[in-house]
Amino acid sequence: MSILVAGSVALDSIRTPFGNRKEILGGSATFFSMTASFFNKVNIVAAVGEDFPKKYIALLKKKSVGLEGLDIRKGSKTFRWSGKYEYDLGTAHTIATHLNVFRDFDPKVPGSLRRPRALFLANIDPDLQLKVLKQVARPKLVACDSMNYWIQSRRKSLIKLLKNVDVFLLNDGEARQLTGEGNLLKAARRALSYGPKAVVVKKGEHGVIYFSRNYHFISPAYLLETVRDPTGAGDTFAGGMIGYLSTVKGISAPAICRGIAYGSVLASFTVEDFGIDRLRRISMRDIRRRYEHFKKITRF
Amino acid sequence: MSILVAGSVALDSIRTPFGNRKEILGGSATFFSMTASFFNKVNIVAAVGEDFPKKYIALLKKKSVGLEGLDIRKGSKTFRWSGKYEYDLGTAHTIATHLNVFRDFDPKVPGSLRRPRALFLANIDPDLQLKVLKQVARPKLVACDSMNYWIQSRRKSLIKLLKNVDVFLLNDGEARQLTGEGNLLKAARRALSYGPKAVVVKKGEHGVIYFSRNYHFISPAYLLETVRDPTGAGDTFAGGMIGYLSTVKGISAPAICRGIAYGSVLASFTVEDFGIDRLRRISMRDIRRRYEHFKKITRF
Repeated sequence: MSILVAGSVALDSIRTPFGNRKEILGGSATFFSMTASFFNKVNIVAAVGEDFPKKYIALLKKKSVGLEGLDIRKGSKTFRWSGKYEYDLGTAHTIATHLNVFRDFDPKVPGSLRRPRALFLANIDPDLQLKVLKQVARPKLVACDSMNYWIQSRRKSLIKLLKNVDVFLLNDGEARQLTGEGNLLKAARRALSYGPKAVVVKKGEHGVIYFSRNYHFISPAYLLETVRDPTGAGDTFAGGMIGYLSTVKGISAPAICRGIAYGSVLASFTVEDFGIDRLRRISMRDIRRRYEHFKKITRF
Repeated sequence: MSILVAGSVALDSIRTPFGNRKEILGGSATFFSMTASFFNKVNIVAAVGEDFPKKYIALLKKKSVGLEGLDIRKGSKTFRWSGKYEYDLGTAHTIATHLNVFRDFDPKVPGSLRRPRALFLANIDPDLQLKVLKQVARPKLVACDSMNYWIQSRRKSLIKLLKNVDVFLLNDGEARQLTGEGNLLKAARRALSYGPKAVVVKKGEHGVIYFSRNYHFISPAYLLETVRDPTGAGDTFAGGMIGYLSTVKGISAPAICRGIAYGSVLASFTVEDFGIDRLRRISMRDIRRRYEHFKKITRF
């Protein structure tokens, strides 16, 4: 009864107005699993090269992230991304992407991991997301993320994927790009018509909007004094949300709202430091404390 | 036990991607009083020219807005503003400002209005805001608004004013401009150090943040499918908030949160149509219904 995530494990080089880091642990599956593992057992399906630092393997293991599905490919190099953020920290500007091992990534879900309770298809080629989905017994909850690049270049595959997911997470710009609707309420309605049961529109520092056929929920982001690096915010949001939802009996509207709040709390920790530096230091007690504070400062 | 507002009554010409209007009723005191009057008796201190349309006088009277303090100046023309909004509707681009009667506006509070329960000093020259404040017995609640122009050109007067107000409302850009702090939490703390008991940072479609010395509250904006004209959103937010707070016994933190929610609800109605077109059609029942819905879709 665990969570499975398929995505990237990467080495990120990041520059923000508050500092820079070289080749630190990153990737969507990393960020997701580091946060979802606070709630449940998480297994990763991803690939890295033989250059992937052993200390990062140790770090993931320490967080109880299952690495049976992590393909450490001989003769390959790990996926690398470098980017920078300006003062507003809103959008990442990619400096370089070296796909390396990801160029011919063909995700294989080990037999023992084919019955997950929840599945998160992190931001990779929608054709690969579909491939992963086909390899598992239908989980109780399937969520996926995507990005502008796939919306443009793999629209057909993405739409096919959306027919088969419960929760589709995307940011506001992607929602507008995918649907051609400027208004988020209209964009969300259009996105729902593609098949997912629910759509979560992430607005970064401005919070999150959740839509389903008969309900919507709006949430501000937790307010922070220190934001050093937004990398991974979206994936840790998903990790908090899916992680929490994987623990509840029935996925009701109130449970989803609580899941979104947990997602916001986890994302808020993430951006307080570079990469996973903040996440690796917090405990479930810190998460619960911030969750309660978040509830207090949003309730009227 | 009523509310007094000093500000502008204007004729606005507005162009948005959804239409345009010529010389419609506008102005900060208008928008504020139209909304606050749902909660309490409101009196206006403002000036218009003899060209001010009688139908607008009738409209304000119909909403029970007290016009004893409205100076209808012979030989003068009413203040006119024309502006346009692009698709994002975020910021108004001023096309022309004709101060007319406002050029030598010298606000006089009639004797009968000098004991208001709440006072709203809408966005005018801070020296004039101070002048109004001096003419009244200290109200239970004093709130003020300002804008980038006064922050730059009348900083000293504005800071003097802030020492004497309870609630300072400004938008996120103004908060950053006034304090030199990019981070809103830091900007708010700095703004509080100038003297007000509380600061409300308005983020337009992204909601509102309330700060006091020992408490903060964050709220998303009510999500709308139709936004036709953002003019007046800030003043109707203030009208809903101050209007509600003028009716409660003690101004506690929970009361303030409810006031902010009422402000958000009133602003959400305002932007659904041009000028006051939506506001003039709604009832307290519509407001309560949207308030309850807002509560439902934000609570976790």
